[in-house]
Amino acid sequence: MNDLNRRDLLAAAAAIGAASALSPLISQQANAAAPATAAQAPGFYRYKVGTIECTSINDGARTFPLPDKWVTNVSKDAALAAAEAAYMPKGMVTVPFNPQLINTGGKFVLLDCGNGVSVLEPTKGQAGRTLQNLAAAGVDPKSIDIVIMSHLHPDHTNGIRAADGSMAFPNAQIMVPAKDWEFWMSDENAAKAQSNEMMKGYFANVKKIYTGIESKVAKFDWDKEVAPGITSIAAPGHTPGHTAFAVASGGSKVLIQSDVTNIPEFFLRNPDWHVAYDFDPELAQKTRHKFYDMASAEKATVVGFHFPFPAVGHVERDGKGYRLIPVAFNPVL
Amino acid sequence: MNDLNRRDLLAAAAAIGAASALSPLISQQANAAAPATAAQAPGFYRYKVGTIECTSINDGARTFPLPDKWVTNVSKDAALAAAEAAYMPKGMVTVPFNPQLINTGGKFVLLDCGNGVSVLEPTKGQAGRTLQNLAAAGVDPKSIDIVIMSHLHPDHTNGIRAADGSMAFPNAQIMVPAKDWEFWMSDENAAKAQSNEMMKGYFANVKKIYTGIESKVAKFDWDKEVAPGITSIAAPGHTPGHTAFAVASGGSKVLIQSDVTNIPEFFLRNPDWHVAYDFDPELAQKTRHKFYDMASAEKATVVGFHFPFPAVGHVERDGKGYRLIPVAFNPVL
Repeated sequence: MNDLNRRDLLAAAAAIGAASALSPLISQQANAAAPATAAQAPGFYRYKVGTIECTSINDGARTFPLPDKWVTNVSKDAALAAAEAAYMPKGMVTVPFNPQLINTGGKFVLLDCGNGVSVLEPTKGQAGRTLQNLAAAGVDPKSIDIVIMSHLHPDHTNGIRAADGSMAFPNAQIMVPAKDWEFWMSDENAAKAQSNEMMKGYFANVKKIYTGIESKVAKFDWDKEVAPGITSIAAPGHTPGHTAFAVASGGSKVLIQSDVTNIPEFFLRNPDWHVAYDFDPELAQKTRHKFYDMASAEKATVVGFHFPFPAVGHVERDGKGYRLIPVAFNPVL
Repeated sequence: MNDLNRRDLLAAAAAIGAASALSPLISQQANAAAPATAAQAPGFYRYKVGTIECTSINDGARTFPLPDKWVTNVSKDAALAAAEAAYMPKGMVTVPFNPQLINTGGKFVLLDCGNGVSVLEPTKGQAGRTLQNLAAAGVDPKSIDIVIMSHLHPDHTNGIRAADGSMAFPNAQIMVPAKDWEFWMSDENAAKAQSNEMMKGYFANVKKIYTGIESKVAKFDWDKEVAPGITSIAAPGHTPGHTAFAVASGGSKVLIQSDVTNIPEFFLRNPDWHVAYDFDPELAQKTRHKFYDMASAEKATVVGFHFPFPAVGHVERDGKGYRLIPVAFNPVL
């Protein structure tokens, strides 16, 4: 019975369903039944920049119905078509989140820290996985020396607090862009934003997260080496102080773009599209072109907070926009 | 000292190097030094096809100097340009290997099993990682019920034996394409191939691997349900019996292409290029167009043994060739 070419066996398989027809063969193996469902692989990925070891940490990915005006300056049909072209579930959009852990000079620096517990139903559980994936990568949150925020939006900053409100990285210095701190901590700015639900929420969130921990926070400017090997790059528009970073070592460099674009399937392919979350969409658009013209000319490795995990790739010009070439998985460092 | 905007601090940083200038701030954290290098994340990735759970298992990826005539019908410069366009290391080519584990009806089916211990220096250690990554995915080799080979080349079949020559999957039925078995087990064919070093090696390898275990081997034909939910698809050319597979459940389907192309950066973009390993390059080229025309028209999910891990994506027409859109990492199943 070892030759499945036998016509009678195959005819029977076609007639009554192969599962039962093949069962005499298959049942020779009396192995334990395979479990129906197992867990996904952990979301971390290591890459080197010279002697600096970086780890992309997946905070998860939220999939939700594409909101009206999520892209503010094109039709919803155009946005839905972009989602479909990227094989997202019909009518939905998927937004991943990827903080970066940088091991620089024996110090652990975390660039952004994910959603924490701020993800609400119905997508609760899809994100806020940074602590879990740091653990999978063998990293104790107590060992994080510095957390650097690219900007003060909830999906980047809220993971600074654990589920009980305590500090998720109790020994870490927190560094935030000076311009973002100034903007979001201003009561005057908050008062002006009360008529805009999104902005109102952002202001309230910054207050909630940072009240009581102001003394742990250091502010930084652009074009400065904010930690060994890590330089802040001006990337305003998404927020007033929105910052990208260069990680450099021994002639190698990676650009951590933060939110220069939101998801690449929409905003890298179409750099003139405006995501609803942008504070100054025109400035964000200008920053986008400037950043990607530089990255593509340099053939730089680019890491995007909202790129699909592991969120590392190269950006190339493609017509009026750009395309992302994801890095090939490297099984050995 | 918590405000890094302070001009004197920054001036000092610019003057003497930020690492030392920032050290008073950084040294506030007396954490354990981060380890210099940690291991890469394990190479497994789960995806669902209806109720069938699949796991892409990375056997590794070999990076080696691009051989002359690796692409037999274009210049070496053209091949080097394709490698460079894919950001491979200069002058080199990277070939990944990805067996697929299919959990179908409570049975574990492994489609191809990687290089085993057959990878020689200087790339030894870069591949042959299937057992290691199965273990990372929580799968005991003893629990594998069926191993199905797409064809009998060493990188697909040699993992059937453990390092000591014993069966790596001791309880598994082994299934091979009837046409490949017939071709590679023929002494007449082997004798004819003695003048071709590559083919001579392939014949010797099949003998070495399969001698003594013939009774464990079942042969299968094309267009048959070879295991529940898994159908064999004719894909000849790469070898006489080279086989692709469809995995189907509840209206969902994934095409496991095996070696319809070798690496997509070369042979999916340029389907008329011939890889040195093809037995009948003209037929392989014809198979390639037929397979991808079908896959792109159906918007099918395609899994490629030699795609970058996790080796799952969609194939689209792109000019005279095709392009691969890799799947977005799904953190929750």
